[in-house]
Amino acid sequence: MAVRTKRPAGERTRAAILHEAVSLATVEGLEGLSIGTLASALDMSKSGLYAHFGSKEALQLATVDEAGRVFEAEVIDPALAAPPGVDQLVAVCEAFFEHLERRRFPGGCFFAGAVLEMGARPGPVNERIVAFQSSFIALVRQFVARAQELGEVAEDEDPDQLTFELNGIILAANMTFILHQDPRSLDLARQVVRRRLGVTEAGASGADVGREVFAGQG
Amino acid sequence: MAVRTKRPAGERTRAAILHEAVSLATVEGLEGLSIGTLASALDMSKSGLYAHFGSKEALQLATVDEAGRVFEAEVIDPALAAPPGVDQLVAVCEAFFEHLERRRFPGGCFFAGAVLEMGARPGPVNERIVAFQSSFIALVRQFVARAQELGEVAEDEDPDQLTFELNGIILAANMTFILHQDPRSLDLARQVVRRRLGVTEAGASGADVGREVFAGQG
Repeated sequence: MAVRTKRPAGERTRAAILHEAVSLATVEGLEGLSIGTLASALDMSKSGLYAHFGSKEALQLATVDEAGRVFEAEVIDPALAAPPGVDQLVAVCEAFFEHLERRRFPGGCFFAGAVLEMGARPGPVNERIVAFQSSFIALVRQFVARAQELGEVAEDEDPDQLTFELNGIILAANMTFILHQDPRSLDLARQVVRRRLGVTEAGASGADVGREVFAGQG
Repeated sequence: MAVRTKRPAGERTRAAILHEAVSLATVEGLEGLSIGTLASALDMSKSGLYAHFGSKEALQLATVDEAGRVFEAEVIDPALAAPPGVDQLVAVCEAFFEHLERRRFPGGCFFAGAVLEMGARPGPVNERIVAFQSSFIALVRQFVARAQELGEVAEDEDPDQLTFELNGIILAANMTFILHQDPRSLDLARQVVRRRLGVTEAGASGADVGREVFAGQG
């Protein structure tokens, strides 16, 4: 973005504009994002942005879609590329932690904030956010189910419960990072993921290891 | 509030005004809360509200404090009243779930939203929110440490990890409730709390029970 924002306004691509829109939304909120505030942040004319988006709602929807593309590239794609099983569950959490560490957006995870911001505001923007967040949780549940099929998550684990817990770890990591603004705060999140999934070190995983860890709790 | 808002404006107490301010902030965000928007929501004059608060920032700070009082009364006080040990850990989560179910505020937990909204906005309002959220997490950690002293949480559990996980369960419950707007979605959160803490049914708890539950995972 540092390079792109030095270009003349006319050369800026829709993608570069939308990247700034997502960043701004993680600070000001999606409701704080308007064609006026974005034009001011980009030092562009409002009329130029109207040509791209036409309305505040269209801008908000395009911003949600752009945030979704970034989340797919930085969190979902690395998880899909990981080998199925517990490694994939670790990978999706790790990709999320790296997404935070990279400080891709100043206000942390776009969707964690957007779900809460727009939750009591019915409409197309809220529906798009809910659809994306729900599809991410459904994907994590698929990863959990696959890991269980492979015997790497114990048979008597409830996949919905484990999915809920992993989502909770992701949300707590986002909150902790925002509260402390310190990458070291993510070390604790990493430890929690590994212990919960019975992974003792990078690469070593599976139900047998998990059983040993849990047996050691007594 | 339904009764209070029918009173003449002059009779409204500062507390009633602040209750509406917290509700409004869970929908519009703390930044969306201004003396103008609040006056409009309460059908009061802006000058009347200026007499109470003087500035947007003073109104925001008073709103955070009011949200803190509600959270203390509905979540912290019931947890402090519970017997120390695993029961107290269950109690703090359960009080939070009931706080959500009661739909005290339309946008879910005020602080979960406020931490994310204000995280990238340094200043007195953010500092007040961070202080409250941090003190809540510190309190949960005290509950965890006490439960461990009593032998109801295994000795080799890391109190920071367990506190992080409980905070994650609370945040995931808030997000799930907002996504689905369905009290039944909290049943899963309740199951996760009980399994994580080794509580098989209401009242039955402790490390021995936990060992049995975890041993059953292999």
